[in-house]
Amino acid sequence: MGQYNAPLRDMQFVMHELLGVENELKALPKHADIDADTINQVLEEAGKFCSEVVFPLNQVGDREGCKYAGDGVVTTPTGFKQAYRQYIDAGWPALACDPEFGGQGLPQVINNALYEMLNSANQAWTMYPGLSHGAYECLRAHGTPEQQATYLPKIVSGEWTGTMCLTEPHCGTDLGMLRTKAEPNGDGSYAISGTKIFISAGEHDMAANIIHLVLARLPDAPPGTKGISLFVVPKFIPDANGAPGELNQRNGIKCGSIEHKMGIHGNATCVMNLDGARGWLVGEPNKGLNAMFVMMNAARQGVGMQGLGLTEVAYQNSLAYAKERIQMRSLTGPKAPDKPADPIIVHPDVRRMLLTQKAYVEGGRAFSYWTALHIDKELSHGDEAERREAADLVALLTPIIKAFLTDNAFECTNHALQIYGGHGYIAEWGMEQYVRDARINMIYEGTNSIQALDLLGRKVLGDMGAKLKKFGKLVQDFVEAEGVKEEMQEFVNPLADIGDKVQKLTMEIGMKAMANPDEVGAAAVPYQRVVGHLVFAYFWARMARIALDKQGSGDKFYESKLATARFYFAKLLPETAYHIRVARAGAKTQMEVDVDLF
Amino acid sequence: MGQYNAPLRDMQFVMHELLGVENELKALPKHADIDADTINQVLEEAGKFCSEVVFPLNQVGDREGCKYAGDGVVTTPTGFKQAYRQYIDAGWPALACDPEFGGQGLPQVINNALYEMLNSANQAWTMYPGLSHGAYECLRAHGTPEQQATYLPKIVSGEWTGTMCLTEPHCGTDLGMLRTKAEPNGDGSYAISGTKIFISAGEHDMAANIIHLVLARLPDAPPGTKGISLFVVPKFIPDANGAPGELNQRNGIKCGSIEHKMGIHGNATCVMNLDGARGWLVGEPNKGLNAMFVMMNAARQGVGMQGLGLTEVAYQNSLAYAKERIQMRSLTGPKAPDKPADPIIVHPDVRRMLLTQKAYVEGGRAFSYWTALHIDKELSHGDEAERREAADLVALLTPIIKAFLTDNAFECTNHALQIYGGHGYIAEWGMEQYVRDARINMIYEGTNSIQALDLLGRKVLGDMGAKLKKFGKLVQDFVEAEGVKEEMQEFVNPLADIGDKVQKLTMEIGMKAMANPDEVGAAAVPYQRVVGHLVFAYFWARMARIALDKQGSGDKFYESKLATARFYFAKLLPETAYHIRVARAGAKTQMEVDVDLF
Repeated sequence: MGQYNAPLRDMQFVMHELLGVENELKALPKHADIDADTINQVLEEAGKFCSEVVFPLNQVGDREGCKYAGDGVVTTPTGFKQAYRQYIDAGWPALACDPEFGGQGLPQVINNALYEMLNSANQAWTMYPGLSHGAYECLRAHGTPEQQATYLPKIVSGEWTGTMCLTEPHCGTDLGMLRTKAEPNGDGSYAISGTKIFISAGEHDMAANIIHLVLARLPDAPPGTKGISLFVVPKFIPDANGAPGELNQRNGIKCGSIEHKMGIHGNATCVMNLDGARGWLVGEPNKGLNAMFVMMNAARQGVGMQGLGLTEVAYQNSLAYAKERIQMRSLTGPKAPDKPADPIIVHPDVRRMLLTQKAYVEGGRAFSYWTALHIDKELSHGDEAERREAADLVALLTPIIKAFLTDNAFECTNHALQIYGGHGYIAEWGMEQYVRDARINMIYEGTNSIQALDLLGRKVLGDMGAKLKKFGKLVQDFVEAEGVKEEMQEFVNPLADIGDKVQKLTMEIGMKAMANPDEVGAAAVPYQRVVGHLVFAYFWARMARIALDKQGSGDKFYESKLATARFYFAKLLPETAYHIRVARAGAKTQMEVDVDLF
Repeated sequence: MGQYNAPLRDMQFVMHELLGVENELKALPKHADIDADTINQVLEEAGKFCSEVVFPLNQVGDREGCKYAGDGVVTTPTGFKQAYRQYIDAGWPALACDPEFGGQGLPQVINNALYEMLNSANQAWTMYPGLSHGAYECLRAHGTPEQQATYLPKIVSGEWTGTMCLTEPHCGTDLGMLRTKAEPNGDGSYAISGTKIFISAGEHDMAANIIHLVLARLPDAPPGTKGISLFVVPKFIPDANGAPGELNQRNGIKCGSIEHKMGIHGNATCVMNLDGARGWLVGEPNKGLNAMFVMMNAARQGVGMQGLGLTEVAYQNSLAYAKERIQMRSLTGPKAPDKPADPIIVHPDVRRMLLTQKAYVEGGRAFSYWTALHIDKELSHGDEAERREAADLVALLTPIIKAFLTDNAFECTNHALQIYGGHGYIAEWGMEQYVRDARINMIYEGTNSIQALDLLGRKVLGDMGAKLKKFGKLVQDFVEAEGVKEEMQEFVNPLADIGDKVQKLTMEIGMKAMANPDEVGAAAVPYQRVVGHLVFAYFWARMARIALDKQGSGDKFYESKLATARFYFAKLLPETAYHIRVARAGAKTQMEVDVDLF
């Protein structure tokens, strides 16, 4: 039941009209020869694959879930394995990987679009290839040449998948407490023992081998986060030729059980027991957390794409339902007099719920593709200053991609469910799965509260607002260029206003934080919503500019874009009025309460 | 896993210190002799029953769900039947029922507290007795003496349960479209045929008989809502002595299947097929919707209690977890230096999520018990003017009880889940069930959008604000009495302010609505949040007043109450700044968009 069609028109609008990707990539030696046609072709093919192969498995995956068959064996839902085989055969895993290891070398911005579509089609399935990408990034940045030669080609091809093994039963956010131990075997390898939990795709039947990246402590490691090292621990130890190895080379890392979860049932969330598993150090001893952060930032971008993908598919379905389902008459008189009632899209509140989804998904697409393009610039712009500038913007905006997009996705999938009324609550119709799947995205890879602390504490206050000023400069330049034009007043004025408010709020919190660090913790979450809206207001104003230029072209796409921009500024941006007040109210009312008064 | 302890101290605070129930009931002849001790004893006994008998079945019920065994037979989860037997044996179904039919004749305000506790313990289970109450109210108000004699004693005792059969596949909100037909049999009974869906507790194995109240059309009925009649359709047709009847008297109303839902798995949501089922008219022909509204208002109050109950139990568990789980150090330095990390309750954002739950659950308790007491006044105050006054306030506030409390419950159960981090997403820990269960409360018995239309369109604008002014008078009286006292400024000023804002906003919308009825539809949902906060601000200010009077009593309960009031005014009431802006922005941006631009 349900439908998914890749929103190619809007993707192309963002790529070509908003970002001018073709032109931007010319400054990136590695991607200089990619043209618009290539991009469109890849998007189209990916869209087809997602709709035809991955999407039909979404509800099956939810219903069947993964099964733990005992003795470390996990089976995935019907069809998952076959779809993954097709995914490999079509070469999708290699899309944005380095040609040195068999990749196709396309930029992140295209990979981002691929992941948006995969997640719309089936988030649980997409996590299997998705997690490999983290392992790829990590080994590529920190692996030895031998490790790279052994693992990367197989990960790039998709024959092997990867995981990130961080969390333990007593520590998630607080990795400084982790206890898994690594003892040298004397042959360059380590014997690793401990228990890891919440390991997504930790065990499954879709690939010949699984490459775990595991955080553990060396015997002489200092306590806390400065004593954590990173190891590569393959399920099957590869032989000299990089083959998965004989069965007798099965490593001592085994799935002990899988979790029963609210959603993403099709993805195996594993308890992984390491009992003297052989692993090899990746990067320097005790610097494991730094190495892992390479993965974590990519993962946070990836979670943002999960949010975006779910928002899109939920919107598509609730829109179709709202046009079809008839119930009650319009408050202003019948709109479909030939029918016993009007389609529910005539009702103002149904429209509010639809346009909220539309504004968040299109705003999120513009923002996240723009950020992905800046990751490409960070990685491979010809000019060093441009690389640094891009890196700063990406660092600033990564927690917003992760938290703002996933908060919005939870709100939006709930709107989609609500539009279906009672049917939204019934599994068969598919909407409630989107809500359940969307809920995890606000938790893993650092809860959204942690993202807010990262944004306000580290990214903004940590450099006295330097990175935030860089984004502010973009906003200011736009405001100055467009503020003089009458037709842009309705967008530029509120954008300039929220820009000023963010500046003031940031300074206020900064001052208070010097006296009391809890002020940062109390303000972080509302602050994140406010900055998220500044970012969205900026992109919606830019999109409105383009749409205004195309008015009279007769293309309804631009009318739609303009109407959505107007809705965003009238109905969603005002949320900041609430959060600014809450951020300003400070820490007092929550911190001056004794624990035993709760 | 998890815990539930009835919040007796806070319940007693609301009953005795805030509402002065004992005194208020003296003006109600039927309840004049109920004293505080009786109330406390009932609450205590009910709390024990809920914790010990009903709560332990909550997770089991979710995991097992109901099973459709074929041929109309539905089995409930392990233990449900036995617990229901104990519930009957203890006499709980009869608590607030009329002594004429075997009831104990206690007031609604006590029954409300019972239902809060039952829902905290197990919403899915509670729906079985809960729906009986609707059938009871309906037959008591509109049944013939024979119908009352046949059905009410068995419903009151709990031996039989009841349902409400309204929804059909093509109509939920829009009952005017319903198609189920009732043809006279010539013997005073009717042959009823049609399909009803989403019938909660429509079939189960917990009671000897199930009494369905069914909406259907007579042969000569006018179209639309004015052609709907109400029928009582028992599963087993009672013989002259009111016994369920022999097996050959099994009526032609049968469960065809049950739904697979997001939550409330332990309650059977049934498709009910009526194939010439024998039914008897309740009330007048074609006046079925009016008769049904008696049930619907009680049901909406009941849904509010579901929201309140879930908020309480989620709060209790997330609070216990936040005190126990250690992770990271406080931003202001270690608070538990003897442990490897601090309990997460030291973190400002965890406290925000806890205090949000606390403020919403305690505010909701005060508000809903106050409303229940007004239902008692409406039903049985000695003075006619008082009855009318109470009826107006209840009518005004019922949609707020239903929608505001269930919206808050969804937000709060999500906070509880988030406090558990990754564990919150795992079924075993119990938090995600609360979120899934809470989600239905925003949909059934009229979606929360419909409640908002009821509030703004019917209850407020429908009488030119007369009922709203009655509530406004209560607020104004309090503001005038307390506004002169310095220690109350921090509560009274924002209360007066939101009171003024509601007044202005109401007038603005009323003016716009005269030109364009869609303005009501566009403003209704944000308006509902604003009025909800006016109500909560009023009750929090009143509770703060009591707590201030008890300052220095050494009882930490009052300190806690005061701290929560301060948090409410600083951090939750400001949400109105957002919704007022959205309501004010009007219908334009959502209504001027062509359907094909979505």
